[in-house]
Amino acid sequence: MPEALRPVELRPDGSALRCIDQRALPAQVVWCELTSVDGVIEAIQTLTIRGAPAIGIAGAAAVAMAATRDRALDSLTLRRRLLADAARIADARPTAVNLRWAVARVLARVDRTQGDGEAIAAAARDEAAAVLVEDLAMSRAIGAHALALLPDPAVVLTHCNAGALATGGLGTALAPVYVAAQQGRGIRVVATETRPLLQGARLTAWEVQQAGIDVTLIADGMAAAYLARHEVSAVLVGADRIARNGDVANKIGTYAVALAAQATGVPFYVLAPWSTVDVDTPDGAQIPIEERDGDELRTLGGIATTPPGVAVWNPAFDVTPAALITAIITDRGVHRPPFDLGRP
Amino acid sequence: MPEALRPVELRPDGSALRCIDQRALPAQVVWCELTSVDGVIEAIQTLTIRGAPAIGIAGAAAVAMAATRDRALDSLTLRRRLLADAARIADARPTAVNLRWAVARVLARVDRTQGDGEAIAAAARDEAAAVLVEDLAMSRAIGAHALALLPDPAVVLTHCNAGALATGGLGTALAPVYVAAQQGRGIRVVATETRPLLQGARLTAWEVQQAGIDVTLIADGMAAAYLARHEVSAVLVGADRIARNGDVANKIGTYAVALAAQATGVPFYVLAPWSTVDVDTPDGAQIPIEERDGDELRTLGGIATTPPGVAVWNPAFDVTPAALITAIITDRGVHRPPFDLGRP
Repeated sequence: MPEALRPVELRPDGSALRCIDQRALPAQVVWCELTSVDGVIEAIQTLTIRGAPAIGIAGAAAVAMAATRDRALDSLTLRRRLLADAARIADARPTAVNLRWAVARVLARVDRTQGDGEAIAAAARDEAAAVLVEDLAMSRAIGAHALALLPDPAVVLTHCNAGALATGGLGTALAPVYVAAQQGRGIRVVATETRPLLQGARLTAWEVQQAGIDVTLIADGMAAAYLARHEVSAVLVGADRIARNGDVANKIGTYAVALAAQATGVPFYVLAPWSTVDVDTPDGAQIPIEERDGDELRTLGGIATTPPGVAVWNPAFDVTPAALITAIITDRGVHRPPFDLGRP
Repeated sequence: MPEALRPVELRPDGSALRCIDQRALPAQVVWCELTSVDGVIEAIQTLTIRGAPAIGIAGAAAVAMAATRDRALDSLTLRRRLLADAARIADARPTAVNLRWAVARVLARVDRTQGDGEAIAAAARDEAAAVLVEDLAMSRAIGAHALALLPDPAVVLTHCNAGALATGGLGTALAPVYVAAQQGRGIRVVATETRPLLQGARLTAWEVQQAGIDVTLIADGMAAAYLARHEVSAVLVGADRIARNGDVANKIGTYAVALAAQATGVPFYVLAPWSTVDVDTPDGAQIPIEERDGDELRTLGGIATTPPGVAVWNPAFDVTPAALITAIITDRGVHRPPFDLGRP
């Protein structure tokens, strides 16, 4: 079993952020050394780094890099400059909640830290490292909870990429896959390609293959037929938002896979950090669904697939009703229906 | 309402077959004038002409072209040469049943025809024209039976291409769409792109748009979400083979759309010529499913969408159980469950 992937990781001396360029996958595996705050901001804005947890880890690292760069300054000047840098980092993408949370967390640690610039920089690096360590612990907890529900050997079918690349290195939906492999259990993955942006073909197939785990690629429309004709232990998917009643918003196509799982008697598990649960959203009907540019669907790899001017419906997410979900698995444990996630 | 598309049509004087080059769609609309038997054979072999009914029409036309070319010969020589040409035409593709049937039909008409070469050639052209006319009549019958089940205006969702391009010009699943438009009824089409070969994006979107009918393109994984969030009158799909119990083999992805239709309460109709019913196949489990080259899924237009060496499962068809089908509509009428298609 090779080392787990670390898609975003701060150098211990705070000099650089090492990350994989997700835009180049799978054609090329490009590792970047980002040595400036602006470099990290640009990487977040250009989707070189994507996935909410991964972006949070990168944001925290960028604050620590800024403190390290300025560690020779007097403490007051350093703190003032750090606030300005942190504001720019937090604004790199407007809607990534993890990014603002992670940046604020490093700033709060700096606020609590006394001493000179060296001491402040060391504390910032320590806090940034903790963000990554805790993300990995979250993934490991999800993985362990989920693994208890899977046979050995197991075959799992997943949609989109809720994997190592989107997080600190173990993923959410794929966490039990990596934990199983680390424990020497038998595990095999079936990945849907995930049109229109092909995260399954480009990212999931790549990272699972890199980990030395068998992966089979199918088109999205093949999931139902695959489940009907093969032994599959479970479907594992991530979540973008989970409503209080257990309805789940996730990558477009998830609902169709859930229907197929129900029809074929395969357990359907949603794996996500507890922070994905939005107790203020009573049910899936209240979750706004982003519609994206139709050209994502009118082209594949830059090539036109349909005549110009054809209308397109291109939602980024769909809502899987709670009734189709066997269990929601978070770092807090396994949640079974009937879901009432608003209770403490 | 513009003229209906005629993707394959013999010139009345038997000098040429006019056809649309389906390989070039949708980037280019290329009409070919095939003036020799070899030209037609090559067009069938290179998939310039595709779709079993369309191939049958082209094969019959090619026999008529050969007879017309040789009409000045003595009748015995003409008949001898025609048999040789017909054998080559019938072998253009090995598994297309319609092709052999259509070629044999023109030959039988020639056999029954007395007189000189001119008389034989005229009879062959007449029979080839009848193959097209009857195909259109079959489509029109399917369209009329289906249209009686649809509201006005109607929105229909379809998968793959069972349209004009695959037939003489009205299609099977799309026949009620064209008949509705001709009658001035309101009709709108939602087309899935149909990975891996994108027949929905390339062909269905193109031909429906050409006919002046509104079409919206979605990814295959969006069908369930579309049906859940929009008013859709019915799902209309074609069939490659229908078992006696009503199980239907059709383009991969059809089963998933049928599950989505059931979950959302939308009628799911299968539209196909009665000749698609195989009374010797008791149920869908007996239908062999062709698996195709994985590179169809690993690449698009020569561009890799996934890392090299990733395993692929790429079946051409799936089986939709009869229990998910609201009705099977053939040129003979509307067949409702419980299906027993073996009875005369």
